[in-house]
Amino acid sequence: MACLLGCSAGGAVLVVLPALLIVSSALKYDPTWASLDTRPLPAWYDEAKFGIFIHWGVFSVPSFRSEWFWWDWQGAKYNDTVDFMQENYPPDFTYADFANQFSAEFYNATQWAQLFQDAGARYIVFVSKHHEGFTNWPSKYSWNWNSQDVGPRRDLVGELATAIKNTTNLHFGLYHSLYEWFHPLYLADKESNFSTQNFVNSKTLRELYELVNTYKPDVVWSDGDWEAPDTYWKSQDFIAWLYNESPVKDTVVTNDRWGQGVMCEHGGFFTCSDRYNPGHIVNHKWENAMTIDSQSWGFRRNTVLSDILPIEQLLEQLVSTISCNGNVLLNVGPTKDGIITPIYQERLLQMGSWLKVNGEAIYGTKPWIYQNDTVTINVWYTLNNKTNPPVVYATLFAWPNANILKLGAPVTTPNTAVSLVGYKGSPFSWTASPGQGLSIIMPNINPNDLPSQWAWVLKLTNLTF
Amino acid sequence: MACLLGCSAGGAVLVVLPALLIVSSALKYDPTWASLDTRPLPAWYDEAKFGIFIHWGVFSVPSFRSEWFWWDWQGAKYNDTVDFMQENYPPDFTYADFANQFSAEFYNATQWAQLFQDAGARYIVFVSKHHEGFTNWPSKYSWNWNSQDVGPRRDLVGELATAIKNTTNLHFGLYHSLYEWFHPLYLADKESNFSTQNFVNSKTLRELYELVNTYKPDVVWSDGDWEAPDTYWKSQDFIAWLYNESPVKDTVVTNDRWGQGVMCEHGGFFTCSDRYNPGHIVNHKWENAMTIDSQSWGFRRNTVLSDILPIEQLLEQLVSTISCNGNVLLNVGPTKDGIITPIYQERLLQMGSWLKVNGEAIYGTKPWIYQNDTVTINVWYTLNNKTNPPVVYATLFAWPNANILKLGAPVTTPNTAVSLVGYKGSPFSWTASPGQGLSIIMPNINPNDLPSQWAWVLKLTNLTF
Amino acid sequence: MACLLGCSAGGAVLVVLPALLIVSSALKYDPTWASLDTRPLPAWYDEAKFGIFIHWGVFSVPSFRSEWFWWDWQGAKYNDTVDFMQENYPPDFTYADFANQFSAEFYNATQWAQLFQDAGARYIVFVSKHHEGFTNWPSKYSWNWNSQDVGPRRDLVGELATAIKNTTNLHFGLYHSLYEWFHPLYLADKESNFSTQNFVNSKTLRELYELVNTYKPDVVWSDGDWEAPDTYWKSQDFIAWLYNESPVKDTVVTNDRWGQGVMCEHGGFFTCSDRYNPGHIVNHKWENAMTIDSQSWGFRRNTVLSDILPIEQLLEQLVSTISCNGNVLLNVGPTKDGIITPIYQERLLQMGSWLKVNGEAIYGTKPWIYQNDTVTINVWYTLNNKTNPPVVYATLFAWPNANILKLGAPVTTPNTAVSLVGYKGSPFSWTASPGQGLSIIMPNINPNDLPSQWAWVLKLTNLTF
Amino acid sequence: MACLLGCSAGGAVLVVLPALLIVSSALKYDPTWASLDTRPLPAWYDEAKFGIFIHWGVFSVPSFRSEWFWWDWQGAKYNDTVDFMQENYPPDFTYADFANQFSAEFYNATQWAQLFQDAGARYIVFVSKHHEGFTNWPSKYSWNWNSQDVGPRRDLVGELATAIKNTTNLHFGLYHSLYEWFHPLYLADKESNFSTQNFVNSKTLRELYELVNTYKPDVVWSDGDWEAPDTYWKSQDFIAWLYNESPVKDTVVTNDRWGQGVMCEHGGFFTCSDRYNPGHIVNHKWENAMTIDSQSWGFRRNTVLSDILPIEQLLEQLVSTISCNGNVLLNVGPTKDGIITPIYQERLLQMGSWLKVNGEAIYGTKPWIYQNDTVTINVWYTLNNKTNPPVVYATLFAWPNANILKLGAPVTTPNTAVSLVGYKGSPFSWTASPGQGLSIIMPNINPNDLPSQWAWVLKLTNLTF
Repeated sequence: MACLLGCSAGGAVLVVLPALLIVSSALKYDPTWASLDTRPLPAWYDEAKFGIFIHWGVFSVPSFRSEWFWWDWQGAKYNDTVDFMQENYPPDFTYADFANQFSAEFYNATQWAQLFQDAGARYIVFVSKHHEGFTNWPSKYSWNWNSQDVGPRRDLVGELATAIKNTTNLHFGLYHSLYEWFHPLYLADKESNFSTQNFVNSKTLRELYELVNTYKPDVVWSDGDWEAPDTYWKSQDFIAWLYNESPVKDTVVTNDRWGQGVMCEHGGFFTCSDRYNPGHIVNHKWENAMTIDSQSWGFRRNTVLSDILPIEQLLEQLVSTISCNGNVLLNVGPTKDGIITPIYQERLLQMGSWLKVNGEAIYGTKPWIYQNDTVTINVWYTLNNKTNPPVVYATLFAWPNANILKLGAPVTTPNTAVSLVGYKGSPFSWTASPGQGLSIIMPNINPNDLPSQWAWVLKLTNLTF
Repeated sequence: MACLLGCSAGGAVLVVLPALLIVSSALKYDPTWASLDTRPLPAWYDEAKFGIFIHWGVFSVPSFRSEWFWWDWQGAKYNDTVDFMQENYPPDFTYADFANQFSAEFYNATQWAQLFQDAGARYIVFVSKHHEGFTNWPSKYSWNWNSQDVGPRRDLVGELATAIKNTTNLHFGLYHSLYEWFHPLYLADKESNFSTQNFVNSKTLRELYELVNTYKPDVVWSDGDWEAPDTYWKSQDFIAWLYNESPVKDTVVTNDRWGQGVMCEHGGFFTCSDRYNPGHIVNHKWENAMTIDSQSWGFRRNTVLSDILPIEQLLEQLVSTISCNGNVLLNVGPTKDGIITPIYQERLLQMGSWLKVNGEAIYGTKPWIYQNDTVTINVWYTLNNKTNPPVVYATLFAWPNANILKLGAPVTTPNTAVSLVGYKGSPFSWTASPGQGLSIIMPNINPNDLPSQWAWVLKLTNLTF
Repeated sequence: MACLLGCSAGGAVLVVLPALLIVSSALKYDPTWASLDTRPLPAWYDEAKFGIFIHWGVFSVPSFRSEWFWWDWQGAKYNDTVDFMQENYPPDFTYADFANQFSAEFYNATQWAQLFQDAGARYIVFVSKHHEGFTNWPSKYSWNWNSQDVGPRRDLVGELATAIKNTTNLHFGLYHSLYEWFHPLYLADKESNFSTQNFVNSKTLRELYELVNTYKPDVVWSDGDWEAPDTYWKSQDFIAWLYNESPVKDTVVTNDRWGQGVMCEHGGFFTCSDRYNPGHIVNHKWENAMTIDSQSWGFRRNTVLSDILPIEQLLEQLVSTISCNGNVLLNVGPTKDGIITPIYQERLLQMGSWLKVNGEAIYGTKPWIYQNDTVTINVWYTLNNKTNPPVVYATLFAWPNANILKLGAPVTTPNTAVSLVGYKGSPFSWTASPGQGLSIIMPNINPNDLPSQWAWVLKLTNLTF
Repeated sequence: MACLLGCSAGGAVLVVLPALLIVSSALKYDPTWASLDTRPLPAWYDEAKFGIFIHWGVFSVPSFRSEWFWWDWQGAKYNDTVDFMQENYPPDFTYADFANQFSAEFYNATQWAQLFQDAGARYIVFVSKHHEGFTNWPSKYSWNWNSQDVGPRRDLVGELATAIKNTTNLHFGLYHSLYEWFHPLYLADKESNFSTQNFVNSKTLRELYELVNTYKPDVVWSDGDWEAPDTYWKSQDFIAWLYNESPVKDTVVTNDRWGQGVMCEHGGFFTCSDRYNPGHIVNHKWENAMTIDSQSWGFRRNTVLSDILPIEQLLEQLVSTISCNGNVLLNVGPTKDGIITPIYQERLLQMGSWLKVNGEAIYGTKPWIYQNDTVTINVWYTLNNKTNPPVVYATLFAWPNANILKLGAPVTTPNTAVSLVGYKGSPFSWTASPGQGLSIIMPNINPNDLPSQWAWVLKLTNLTF
C-alpha cells in the first residue's frame, strides 16, 4: 500500500518530514557534536555583550508565581498555586481557558525595540514558545494554541522581528522550548522512554524549522531539553541544518540546551544554568541569563520592589559577567496586555544611561588576563586590544572611603595613565606598588561632575602585560 | 543521519505511523473498493431501522444559524453571521474563544441513553469531531482543542459510550469529520492539490484509529470527505483495517463518505446526501440522516416552532424510508450546557409512543415488493417475512374521509385478513377489487379506542405475492 | 397627612415625595379599603379570561431551580443551589455578577406579541421587577441594577409595552414586587419592625409611580407584600392615586397582594395563592396564576418534558377556572437571551388552536348556575347570556366510552338543542332524564371531522334556568 | 428648620432624614460659613505635612486614560476612549459591566499601611466613592453598586481603616465625591436647576453620614461639588454636624470643595485646584494634591516611565509646598487586583529614605519669613521655632558648581552655624554678605558620605529674624 512510496521492512507507512530533506553536497558541518562544535561563533555575538530576554505567554495571564504556573498548579501542585486557583476561578477552569484573556492590546513592538535600544542592548531573545506549548506565532503545528487563533489574534513573534530588524543595532533572537509539560504526544514518547518520537516529528521540531525559516533569528535559544537525549530531539540534525543551510547559517548563534548532558558541553555559547555567573573566566563563550525580577521570568502581578534587582546589582552582574567572557541576557516579563511596566523601564533606562557613558568598557571588549582585582574586591577588568595602546578598564562599585584605590593586578610603566571614564577633570595621579599594582588617588568630586551614581570605570593605558 | 533508522532513497527522514502497521497474513479484505464492497453488512444495522444522531460541539456555544457557524462567519462570511458577531462580541473574538463557554454542566449521558431508548431508537451516532476540529474526547492529536482541555473538561464521547453500552438494545456509533475547515495543515495539503498528506498523517487519521480503538463504536459515520480523493484520506486502508483487524471488525458498519466521488458508490450503507429519501427502493442499504430542526443539525437558540418538524412528518419520513430499504437517523442538537431541550424530548417521546404500538411494522422488517400503494397516495408498505404466514404492513397518514380505503397493490386471497395494529376491535371487512387490490371499510372509532393520533398501521395477512 | 406623623418637633429635615402630592378635590376613592373596594372592576378584564404571565430577570441567567434562585442560594441556602454555585462559579461570584450575562440579544417584543395573540390571550402581565430588585426598565431609583445599565442595555418593559399596544386585542400589564429580598434599606426597615419606611419612600413606591406614569399598564400585579402591613407599603394611598388620578384610572385593574392579610380580602381581583383554583365559584373576580413549567416561573435550563404541563391539563385549568369566575394567567419564562422556547410556543399555539375553535365558550362568558356537572365528572359549564336565547357551554375532557354522555345539571325544554362546537355534522340527539338532566348520544366521528384532539365543547340552547 | 421649607401646605408626605436630627443645645458651630470658618484646624494636620492619596475604583478595571474613564467615554466621548471600547469590548458593554472584574484579590491593607509608613507619610486619603458612584464600602444607599455586592466582595474602606488605625503614626482620611456623573436622580436634580434635591437626600448625603459614622475618618476630602451651590449639597449642615456632633468632631479636618464658589474660600484646608502649588505663602492652610503619574489619578496600564515623576521633582514639590504653608497629598493608583505597583513603591520608598534623613526639615515645621531664597533659585526654607535657638532649614536641589552657595535671605550673627543635615563631617564655613545673606563653602564630599543623592538640607542656627 503506502509502502510503495518509501518504506522498508515490516510494511510500515512512512511519512517524510520535508524540512529535513537534505542535499548532501558540500556541507560544512556533520550532524555530530565533534563537527558542530568546531564552528566559530559569529563575531557579532561576543561583541554585543548585552541582550534582553523577554518571557511572554499564557502564563502572563494568571501572572502569579512564575512562568511555570501551569506546572506549579497541576504538575507540582504547590499549595499556593492550587489555592490561588481555588480562590479565584471556577472548579472546572483549565489552563487553556486562560488563553483568551491573553489580550496584548497595548503591545507595540516598535516601542519595545526603542526601549531595548535605549537600554543599550545589542540583541534580544524573545520567547516564541515556552514549556506550556503556546506558540507566540501562528504555527501550523499548534492550531488553536497560538497567538493568532486565541487571545492576541496577532503574530507576536513576527511583529517583534520586524521592529527589531528595523533598528540599526539590535539582533533578533528566539527562545524555543523543546518539550511541553503536558503535550500528550510528548508524554506518550516519555512513557516509551523516548523510544518513540511522535512529538518531535509532528510538533516541536517542525516548529523550530518553521520559526527559523519564517523569522530568520540570529539567536536560537533552546530550552526544555533535559529530560531526553539529543538523539530524541534530533538536535544535531537540526543544528547541522541551521549551520549549513538555514537562511541564517552565517549569522546565527545557538546555545547549549539540546539534550540531556549536552548543556555546558556542546553547542554554541554555554548557558550551563539559569543565572550562570561563575566568577572566573570560562574560555568557551557563555551567557548569564538572568532576571530583573529575582523571583520570576514571567510577569508577576504581585512582585514587590524588594524582588526587583537594584541597578547597582544589575551593573555588577553585567560587568563581572563580561570580565569573565560572558554575555548578559537580562530578562523582562511583559504583562498580558503587552506592557513592559515602568519599573522595568526604569531599570533598563538606568542601564542605558550608564552604558551611554561607560559603554567603551563593555561593547567589543575582551577579558583581560585578570578578571577581577587581586587586592581590592569587586573591581572587574575588561580589555580593549583593538586600540594602540590597548586599554584596560577597571570598574569599581564602591568609591574608596579614604580616596586611595589600591589595585593589585596592573603592572604599570612610567607612561601609565589612569582616568575616570566620563569625567572631564584631570587624570588621576597614582603611585606604583612594589612589584605589581598601584595606588590611585581618587579625589572628591563635585556631585555634578560624577559621571555616574552607581559604578565608575577607570581607564588604564600603557600597562605592561 | 536519521536515515540509519529507516529511510530509502533521497535521505528522507521517515516517520512510522504505528496504527497502520499491518500484519499481512490471513486478512479477508484488501484495501480496495472492489474487495471492501463485498463485505456483508452486519445484520443488526438493517434490523435497527431507527437511530439518533447527535450534533454537539463548540458550535453549540454561539448556537446561531447552524453547526457550520465558523464557516458561515469566517469562510462564507454570511451577513447575518458576521453581523451577529459584530453586535455581540469584541472585535478580536476568535472562534476558539468560544470553547471555554462549552460548559456541559448538565450533561448526563445516562439520561440521554434513557431518552433514546424511550424514543424507540436502536442506535445512536454521536459527533466525535465536526468540521471545526474540536474533539469531544481527549485526543492526543488535538491538544487544547478538545473537550478535556477546554470547556467541558470531560470525555464526552467516553461518557456516552459507557451509558449506551449499558443499555440493552442501543448500538453506539460515532460521527467523524475527515476534514477541518481551518486546520493549517489541511489547508497546506489542499494548497498542494493534496500531493502532501501531513494533515492526514498527523491528525485526522490518527484520531480515527484512536477513536475506534478507544470507544469501539458499531458505526463509523464519516463525513467531510468531499474535497479530496480517497487516496488522500487513505480511506481504503483504514476501512480494511476496520473490517479486518479492529476491535469492532465483526459488528461495525460504516457509511459512504470516504472521498470525492465515493459517496453513494462505495463503502457501507449509502447516505448519498443529507436528508436523502428517494421515495423508491434502493437495493443497497441506505440511511436517511435528517433533523428535527429543519434548519440545523446543531442547536440554535433562536429556533422557532415552525422550524421543528411536527410528529406527523417525522413518522412519514420514518415509514417511507424504511419501506424503501433505508434507516432513519434522526438528529438532535444539545445545548452547550448539555440539555436535549423539551421540544426534542417531546418529538422523541412521540416517536416512542407510536413505535411502542406500531413497532412490529418497523423493526426487523424488509421492503415489500411494493413500497407505497398504487391507488391511495401516502400509504407505505413493509414486510415481515419471518412469520408464517408473512405479514404485510400498510401505514396510512390520513384516515379515509368516506371510511373506505382503496389499496391497489395487495393481491388478496379468500383468507386475507385486515386489522388495525393496536386496535382491540374486530378486523376490518374488505372487498377485493377486480384484478388486484382491495377496498377496506374503516369504521368510525371512538376516539378513546384509536391506537394513535397520527398514523395508523393496517396488518394484512394471507396475501398472494 | 403624614405631616401629622413627624414634621414638627426636633427641627427634622423633611423630604417631599412629589408623586404623592394629592389634590383633595373631587376624588372618587379614599385611601381606605372600605372605599377602594367599592370600585367596579373595569369590564375588559373579566371578558378577557386568558392572559400570559412572563417572568424574566437576572434569575434567567443562572436559570436553575427557579426565579427564587438568589434566595435559594443565599437566603434559604438549599444544598442543590449552593452546590450548583460551588461547582460552576468562582468562590467570590455574586448574584449581581450574573447581570451582565443577561444578554437579551434575541428579544423581539413584536414577535412575542404575535405569539401571545396566536395563543388566544387577551392580556399579558410582564415582570417589571421581581424580588431580586433588578428593574427591567431604566428606573431612576435602581441605578446600575436595571436592564439599561447592565446586561440587555435596553428598556425591556418599554419595548414590550409598545409592541402589545400595537396589537388590536391585547391589554398590557405589569408585575411588580414590593419587597426585595436583600435590599439593605428594606432589611433595615424590617429590622425596625417596619417602623421606618426608608425603603418604601426612596425605592419601591417611587418605582411603582414611575412604572405607571411611564408605561400606563392596564394591570398592576403586585407581589412581595406579605412580610409587612399595607400601611408600611402605603398601598391604600397608591391604589387611591391609581384609581383617582393615574393615567390609567379608567382601565386599570389590580390584584390583592398589597400587605399582610390583604390577599384574598381587598384590592382588585383576588389571587389568594399561586395556582389558585378552588373548584367552586368565588363571587369576587379572581385569577388563577399558573405555570406551563410545573416547577418554576422563571426559565430553567434543565426543565424536562415531564415538568411541562400537557395541553390537556392546561385546557382543563382554563375551563374549570373560567367556569368558577376566574381568569387564567398562564406563565412562560423566557431565556436570558430573549427566547420563548419552542416547547412554550407549542403549548401556547395549542391553546390558540383550541380557542380558535372553542373561544365562544370562553371569552366574554359568565359562570352558569352550575360550574361543573352533577353526574359526569370533569364537565364544566359557562354561560353566554348576551345572546337570545342564552347558550350554556359544557366542556368535556373525555369522550364517553359508550357514546352516551349523561349530564345532570341542565333542565331541558322540548326546544333544547345540543351541538358540538366546531363540528359540521348534525346536532346530537338527546333524551331528557327524569326530573333534571339529559342523556346525549355522541356518535363516533371520523377523526378528520373531530374539532379538537383534546377537549370538546357542547353547546346547549333553550334550557330552562 | 427645613420644616420652614415645606412641611405645611398640601398634605405632603414627609420623610425624615434621621441623620440630620440635630439636638439644638450647646453646639459650637452654626451651619453657616461665617461660623464654620472660625473653627481652628486640628493641629495634627499641619504637623503631618505629607499624606498619600489613593484612587481606586471601577475605573481601575479599564485602567485606561484616567479615573474619568466613564465620562471620557460616554460623556465627553473622546476619540481615544471611544476607540478603546470599540476595539476591545462588545458593542453593548456598559460601564457597570466592568465592575465584576474589579477583583482586588491581592489587596492587603496591612501591606499598604506599612508601605505608607515607610514612605514617611503621616496620613492617607482613600477614595471611598469617585464620580462613578461605586462605593468602596457596602453602603446601604448604593445597592449592587458597591465593593461588597459586585467585584471585590469586600469592604475596601473598612479593611484600610482598620489597618491604618493599627499603625502608630498614620491618620485615616476619606475622599468622597458629592456628585455622580450619571446618576439619574442627580441628572434630574440638575435638570431642575437644582430646585429638587432627591439625589442629595436619598443618596450622596446619606452616604457621607454613613461613612463618617462607620469609619470615623480624620479627613473628609470632598469633591465633585462644582456644578451646584452649597445649599443644594446641604454642605453647611453637614459640616456643622461634623464639627459639632460627629464621632470625629475633635480631630477631623475637611477641605474646601463643598459647592460652587466655595473652593479656596471656605471650609477647612484649601485645595483651590488639583496640583495647587502657588509658589508663595498662603496664610490659610492649604494642600497640594498631586500625582506620581503625571497624567492620571487612577492606575493606567499603559503609563510609561516618562509619565512618572522622578524623585527629584517629587522632593521639589514636597519642600516648596511645605515652605509655603501647604501639605502634600501624593497620589497612587492601585491596580484592579489591589497592587501598588513597584514603580510607585520605588518612588514612595525614595521619599521615605529621604525623609528618614531630612524629616526634621519637614515634619512639624512652619513657614519661615522667606519661602525661597532671594539670590539662589530653588532653595526653599522651613522653620523649626520650637527649639532654642530656632532652626532655619534651606533645602537645595542643585549642588553649587563652584562649591560656593550664596543665600540672600538669612541675616547672620557671629554665632550663626551652617551644617548639612545627615552629614557627619564638620559644619560648613561661611562668610556674611554685605547687608544680608551669606556665602557658604560647600566642599566636595566623598560620595559615600553624601546624605542623599537628590536634595540636600542646610541647617542654619542663630540667624537674626
